[in-house]
Amino acid sequence: MNHPAPWQQPIPAPSDTHRQAALARQAQLTKPAGSLGRLEALAVTLAALQHTDTPTAERIHMSVFAADHGVCGEGISAFPQAVTGQMIANFVAGGAAISVMANTLGARLEVINLGTVTPPPTTDGVIDDSIAPGTANLACDPAMTADQLAQALAAGDRAAQRAAEQQAQLFIGGEMGIGNTTSATALACALLDDAPTDLAGPGTGLDKAGVAHKVNVIERALERHGNDRDASACLASLGGFEIAALTGAIIGSARRGIPVLVDGFIVTSATLAAVRLRPEVRDWLLFAHQSREPGHARLLQALDAEPILDLGMRLGEGSGAAVAVPVLRSACALHNHMATFADAGVASSQ
Amino acid sequence: MNHPAPWQQPIPAPSDTHRQAALARQAQLTKPAGSLGRLEALAVTLAALQHTDTPTAERIHMSVFAADHGVCGEGISAFPQAVTGQMIANFVAGGAAISVMANTLGARLEVINLGTVTPPPTTDGVIDDSIAPGTANLACDPAMTADQLAQALAAGDRAAQRAAEQQAQLFIGGEMGIGNTTSATALACALLDDAPTDLAGPGTGLDKAGVAHKVNVIERALERHGNDRDASACLASLGGFEIAALTGAIIGSARRGIPVLVDGFIVTSATLAAVRLRPEVRDWLLFAHQSREPGHARLLQALDAEPILDLGMRLGEGSGAAVAVPVLRSACALHNHMATFADAGVASSQ
Repeated sequence: MNHPAPWQQPIPAPSDTHRQAALARQAQLTKPAGSLGRLEALAVTLAALQHTDTPTAERIHMSVFAADHGVCGEGISAFPQAVTGQMIANFVAGGAAISVMANTLGARLEVINLGTVTPPPTTDGVIDDSIAPGTANLACDPAMTADQLAQALAAGDRAAQRAAEQQAQLFIGGEMGIGNTTSATALACALLDDAPTDLAGPGTGLDKAGVAHKVNVIERALERHGNDRDASACLASLGGFEIAALTGAIIGSARRGIPVLVDGFIVTSATLAAVRLRPEVRDWLLFAHQSREPGHARLLQALDAEPILDLGMRLGEGSGAAVAVPVLRSACALHNHMATFADAGVASSQ
Repeated sequence: MNHPAPWQQPIPAPSDTHRQAALARQAQLTKPAGSLGRLEALAVTLAALQHTDTPTAERIHMSVFAADHGVCGEGISAFPQAVTGQMIANFVAGGAAISVMANTLGARLEVINLGTVTPPPTTDGVIDDSIAPGTANLACDPAMTADQLAQALAAGDRAAQRAAEQQAQLFIGGEMGIGNTTSATALACALLDDAPTDLAGPGTGLDKAGVAHKVNVIERALERHGNDRDASACLASLGGFEIAALTGAIIGSARRGIPVLVDGFIVTSATLAAVRLRPEVRDWLLFAHQSREPGHARLLQALDAEPILDLGMRLGEGSGAAVAVPVLRSACALHNHMATFADAGVASSQ
């Protein structure tokens, strides 16, 4: 193909004019300078990204990408693989954590099936972007072909397009895929040149022996993959369909000028791949929370990211990002609605 | 008086039955065990405190107590003392941070004036519980008399009574009083037997020399006060009217079975006094955030408290507690509305 892929399209810059105006407003609000801490910086960042004087996080688009992983054949998860399809049904039925949070926040939630081993018991309300019934076993073979990677990235870009059509003010990507902490850890190790022993964790609930086995499986995958740090090569070799779709969705949101609130370990691995492919994406990212999964801190450090919350969550689905949304909303409400010293007739500091 | 003061009334116990039921429910929800991190414990704690299977934090009563401090005569604040009265007007006009947050949360906000040097420019909508136009200068004299302390504690208890009449599911106390980090630091030093150099901070924005001067003023106050660690004596000698009212309100909430979400440094100093007076109060406390004021970490440690947020806030007013409310609401929504493995037909871990 001669025309560029969606992820190769131009990415806009945040507005420095609006950033400066937001900083000036913060200095005039009836509070000691800096006393709202990170809430001030969050409001200023959103003002710059949204090119506005009144930043908001009301219209939120959540896309949860689900897919299965061939590496489950190695016995690296505490849950049976059928759970991926079952949870797709739970997402659309409203019973999953992210469904409850979407409802609580008044956010739009869509569920995208990129390919499961066991079909979901219901497909009503599920967007079908199936590529294959799960990836290949990344311990033995590349997880996906170059064509499958392009399909996954494009599926993610279409989610960002739907977010743009809904005039979303914030994009949240989530994921579901039994075995995907193994894939995300392998991807993170390859991108960061880190050892699996430093990044691998319990995922949904492995014990010590389970984590040791997972490390072993990832070591085999990295040996097979070699030293190629190119993000596309790493995604195809070690990623999952849902992880690559997240990479596509994050780049797709940035190129459409939609700020992204990044969830936990899996989404952050996809985010690092996105930033490696397109460094300008970094400007468009806010980081929701510090996951308890041990590799997350290393990914956040590599992205120079300071998460908003640290609640010991490790669920995925985009749930940590959802829980952080009200902090952004509070930051915006305070920025937009507090009185200035002049308005309120309050003396400023001496 | 022969009958006991409000703060000496019995305090109920949380429900262990509801705690156990909530723990059992968390284990059945469609997520890996423990994967919602602190959200699980918060929902379980609220279930036990509210004696319910469906904990909620929808009806919130916020009481902001304002008063002036004689110690301002020592030049320990970056703001002029008239700001206390001006901010009272800003609270009821809706322009202050806590006013914006109350509006955002749909919370009831009341403002209680315990005595200012400069009367507020408006008193419409302000509850007048004035004791005196500010405390005495605690560097030279006891901040208040025993009778004034009893008045302040009783004013706080009346706020808790109003919260109970509104059937509040959560109580948040806030404060405003130019100079009150000096009073709160002196109180904390006396209660904890800590040195002012370890606890004193910039408050609303002192520079290094300003903090050094503040330390000196607090050292004089502690020398004058002596080694009496009795919480009532410390409150009368070193506290503020708004701080003592917070102590009364926190005990008053606990005795009426209303959970308290504790704000930052000032409120936590009042909370420590409350727990020293009535140790059973501790069961009723949730801690909202880690303030940037350096003494806060020490107070939280003494209370064995793990705050929910750490956003570098140091504004007071109850603002940090307000920003933490949606985390409690998320915890409750997830607890009450997620599907169980059985309901959703999802397999649990192998």
